[in-house]
Amino acid sequence: MLAVCLYKGAVYLRDQPRPRRPSGFALIRLLSGGICNTDLELQRGYYGFRGTPGHEFVGEVIAADDSNWIGQRVVGEINLACGACEWCRRGLGRHCPQRTVLGIVKHPGAFREFLTLPERNLHRVPRKISTEQAVFVEPLAAACEILDQVRIPAGAPVAVLGDGKLGLLIGQVLNAYGAEVHQYGHHKEKLRIAAAMGVDVRAGKKTPMAAYDWVVDATGSSLGLMQAVKMTRPRGTVIMKSTVHGLIGIDSAPVIVNELSLVGSRCGRFEPALKLLRSGRVRVDDLISEVLPLKKAALAFRRAGQPGAMKVLLNA
Amino acid sequence: MLAVCLYKGAVYLRDQPRPRRPSGFALIRLLSGGICNTDLELQRGYYGFRGTPGHEFVGEVIAADDSNWIGQRVVGEINLACGACEWCRRGLGRHCPQRTVLGIVKHPGAFREFLTLPERNLHRVPRKISTEQAVFVEPLAAACEILDQVRIPAGAPVAVLGDGKLGLLIGQVLNAYGAEVHQYGHHKEKLRIAAAMGVDVRAGKKTPMAAYDWVVDATGSSLGLMQAVKMTRPRGTVIMKSTVHGLIGIDSAPVIVNELSLVGSRCGRFEPALKLLRSGRVRVDDLISEVLPLKKAALAFRRAGQPGAMKVLLNA
Repeated sequence: MLAVCLYKGAVYLRDQPRPRRPSGFALIRLLSGGICNTDLELQRGYYGFRGTPGHEFVGEVIAADDSNWIGQRVVGEINLACGACEWCRRGLGRHCPQRTVLGIVKHPGAFREFLTLPERNLHRVPRKISTEQAVFVEPLAAACEILDQVRIPAGAPVAVLGDGKLGLLIGQVLNAYGAEVHQYGHHKEKLRIAAAMGVDVRAGKKTPMAAYDWVVDATGSSLGLMQAVKMTRPRGTVIMKSTVHGLIGIDSAPVIVNELSLVGSRCGRFEPALKLLRSGRVRVDDLISEVLPLKKAALAFRRAGQPGAMKVLLNA
Repeated sequence: MLAVCLYKGAVYLRDQPRPRRPSGFALIRLLSGGICNTDLELQRGYYGFRGTPGHEFVGEVIAADDSNWIGQRVVGEINLACGACEWCRRGLGRHCPQRTVLGIVKHPGAFREFLTLPERNLHRVPRKISTEQAVFVEPLAAACEILDQVRIPAGAPVAVLGDGKLGLLIGQVLNAYGAEVHQYGHHKEKLRIAAAMGVDVRAGKKTPMAAYDWVVDATGSSLGLMQAVKMTRPRGTVIMKSTVHGLIGIDSAPVIVNELSLVGSRCGRFEPALKLLRSGRVRVDDLISEVLPLKKAALAFRRAGQPGAMKVLLNA
């Protein structure tokens, strides 16, 4: 079978045997995968990664212990947890210290014709959601995670910084849940996607000082956190969604003087993401900039890394 | 009257007229003041400060609109708030954007023979608390502030990093409120003060990784936050009590991957601090390293700035 591999900056194809299916795992045929900024970081060699990337995917179950899965179109949670530790018992396998992570940490990713994932990680994709739309379940779950971590009162003004793929999902999610979202970014054409869903967008506008109780930094930039801190009112909360490699500088004085809370936020549960997609309260079609076949992975990674690119999909 | 002044690193004495008492303000005769690390930072010229510092004090009311105050021994909250804005109405005058701050921002401090402060900022010092002890009400309130911001379950293990004055107050406060405090520091003789109150102290010990749901950084060092982040378990909380001048470097990856909350924490309400001192559940006598007269302020600042120094008091 065909598998995409990364090694020292290069994206190349390998012909590999189909993966062996351990007990409790499903063998899944890839339908479509999405290239995420994390994949681009893995390509650059962060975390010493080599092997097959890919953690946003939709597939069809080919083999499983539980035969009900067979033939189902599925998405899968990316953390492979031990299932037995304190975190797993609390339903927080996403923080299991023994976990591996699909396409990121010690479990080969989804950018190959067949992959394996524990059956307990799978979610059936409702018919109403297309395969291309379902690729967004994973990043959409990461956007929903914010609402699992902090309580944003209905109607509260929330600033979302950044108009990239994740930023636009976050803006839509918070808007769907009743916040008054003000989305700040530099790309009018991207912000239009959020505006179409009722989000109040502010293209290229100066960000106001100490104006919001809730600010989400989804800029992907090391300067985003500093800007978010400046925009936050005393006792307010900054949600950190920009994973930036290496040390970033912050001025601790305003954080302490204004008693801000900075909340790191990562992966989320898939259930609310599937619900939002199914209901149409979040739309993702306009976030796809290109669909390429798996064998054109090298080109797809190049395109995904271009300035202004949105989601590039790899279809099997 | 005698007033201590700071200008470009120098600590000098001035003979000044007594301050005029505006309506709603009390005129207070200084009994004792405490030199805080913030005062040493003001001396170094941070925030462009010049004038009279001092925000930890005990005094006797000489004149006031409300005659019940006259003759009372008092401590005073340091934020002079407008009393009318949204923050003030919520009881959070400490965050009033119009505020001045005693001895820090646009209101001359307490290191002078007479000072003024709004009557609504005053708290009577119960007879059971000595004047020297009451000087600690302000920093003790800052330690108590943690419990106004986050809910630490009874019996929860909490790591406190740092064995300076504020760190030792925080360790005692959290211990008094039922947390299982592990206090980390490098000075055995200082940690002995916390140990005497039942705190589990760890002198010079290696700090464990991902071991606590609650970590307080009171090191006063730019490296303290990074160390605190490393010690915190997924979904855990780091309380930031180290005001460090300028930018500090943090690695955002563990904050996001482990979904930590970093909570800045500053001044607190005086009521719980007075209660803790009165009940004897927090002891401060051993935190005093020296008591000097106001006219020896230059020497007192030198002593307070020496490595290993604890609280230096200035008595009028």
